[in-house]
Amino acid sequence: MQKQKRLILVTNDDGYQARGFAAAVELAREFGDVIAVAPATPQSGRSQAITFGEPLYLDKRHEEEGLEIYSFTGTPVDCVKIAFDHLLLDRKVDLVISGINHGSNAAINVLYSGTMGAAIEGSFYGIPAVGLSLTDHSPDADFTAAKEYGRRIVQSVLESEREDHGPLCLNVNVPDIPLVEIRGLRICRQCRGLWREEFFPRETPNGRRYFWLTGAFNNYEPDAPETDEWALRNGYVAVVPVQIDMTAYDYMPYLERILK
Amino acid sequence: MQKQKRLILVTNDDGYQARGFAAAVELAREFGDVIAVAPATPQSGRSQAITFGEPLYLDKRHEEEGLEIYSFTGTPVDCVKIAFDHLLLDRKVDLVISGINHGSNAAINVLYSGTMGAAIEGSFYGIPAVGLSLTDHSPDADFTAAKEYGRRIVQSVLESEREDHGPLCLNVNVPDIPLVEIRGLRICRQCRGLWREEFFPRETPNGRRYFWLTGAFNNYEPDAPETDEWALRNGYVAVVPVQIDMTAYDYMPYLERILK
Repeated sequence: MQKQKRLILVTNDDGYQARGFAAAVELAREFGDVIAVAPATPQSGRSQAITFGEPLYLDKRHEEEGLEIYSFTGTPVDCVKIAFDHLLLDRKVDLVISGINHGSNAAINVLYSGTMGAAIEGSFYGIPAVGLSLTDHSPDADFTAAKEYGRRIVQSVLESEREDHGPLCLNVNVPDIPLVEIRGLRICRQCRGLWREEFFPRETPNGRRYFWLTGAFNNYEPDAPETDEWALRNGYVAVVPVQIDMTAYDYMPYLERILK
Repeated sequence: MQKQKRLILVTNDDGYQARGFAAAVELAREFGDVIAVAPATPQSGRSQAITFGEPLYLDKRHEEEGLEIYSFTGTPVDCVKIAFDHLLLDRKVDLVISGINHGSNAAINVLYSGTMGAAIEGSFYGIPAVGLSLTDHSPDADFTAAKEYGRRIVQSVLESEREDHGPLCLNVNVPDIPLVEIRGLRICRQCRGLWREEFFPRETPNGRRYFWLTGAFNNYEPDAPETDEWALRNGYVAVVPVQIDMTAYDYMPYLERILK
């Protein structure tokens, strides 16, 4: 009996021209046919944003046996939606890969990240989703290690029997060090911390003031070895399973008491 | 001893000109001085998006004793950041109110919502945050009931001793029915479900195809009385405490087994 070929959806937030996207497409092709839909322009920091009230354009950028690449003028989440709810309406998708992101999405960044917004959205559709990020922002980052660990993780996820603890979505961050120096992977929890922003005021040529947002991450628990930030700083690939139920159950008894 | 006046930060995602924003400002003023910073233009569905790589403009729109209103050209989260990290650097804020949103943010909408993105961001700064939404999208919605329940909740939160289960962020949704018909409030969990999108293709005058994103919410558990969707459909105000740790702890043993 011939096994049906797998189908992988690839997306990202840096846009369809990013090198990390090409790396994710190459990685995905090792596992089956690939439909890739990425934003037409960079959409970093777009979180789980969706677009309504604006028309969106879909363009096929490349087609060959087993691969189609599209750009879409919306957010990363819009890309996932147009893939599932338009392009792939009659096809079974086996996995979503979002990335490979140029830059870390560890800790609180999971909430701001367009890469992870797309991965979370993918997991809503009942299939596993893997967000892959490399802790190097540069356009010419070296994706060798991220691809190798991405490959191992994708293979394990595709070949393992599922357990139903809700949608399976992984936030995978790879440290920016040579593959041989990586000490392995760690299953982690999201590190606590906050971006403390600095706003740099400037002036336009005609004297109007504007601001650039910049910031630095304050790690509230730098010594906690169970966190993704610790893993990355100590040479490990950090894998955090991500949930979509945002309910803070611990707060419920308190609220029952103070609000009723 | 004179008690120092409270300071409330108000923001939203519908923009500084929305009637729901004016309602939230009025509500907040009952509890202290108000700094209000809202997007210059509507930012619905912007989730927890942040803006970098683009300059942002801050404009003071109104000032009177105990009240300052600003517009900011970024996302709802950018508004919270410019408030805490620029405007209010040397002041203690007691509470963040985001809203009152024109439209529901119950169930999975908590992840797409700019209103809730801003509320979540506010809670990062270590103070309680309340996102307020009314299940009526119309610009001339009646905010009477939402204000009344918002008032009760804000009062309870401000006057209760804190318990530390992490940042306190509430997703409050008010059904679109007259105040007298509301049956009270319920502490709920986030309902499971998915927006299934439909993309309507159209053509520009010069023949280029584009898409409008529209969708319908599929409720996976319409009969679960502990969910926010059930509460709203049955005439209750739904209060869901929201957490910022996205780690899916239940999945960790499974991942330890399949990935290592």
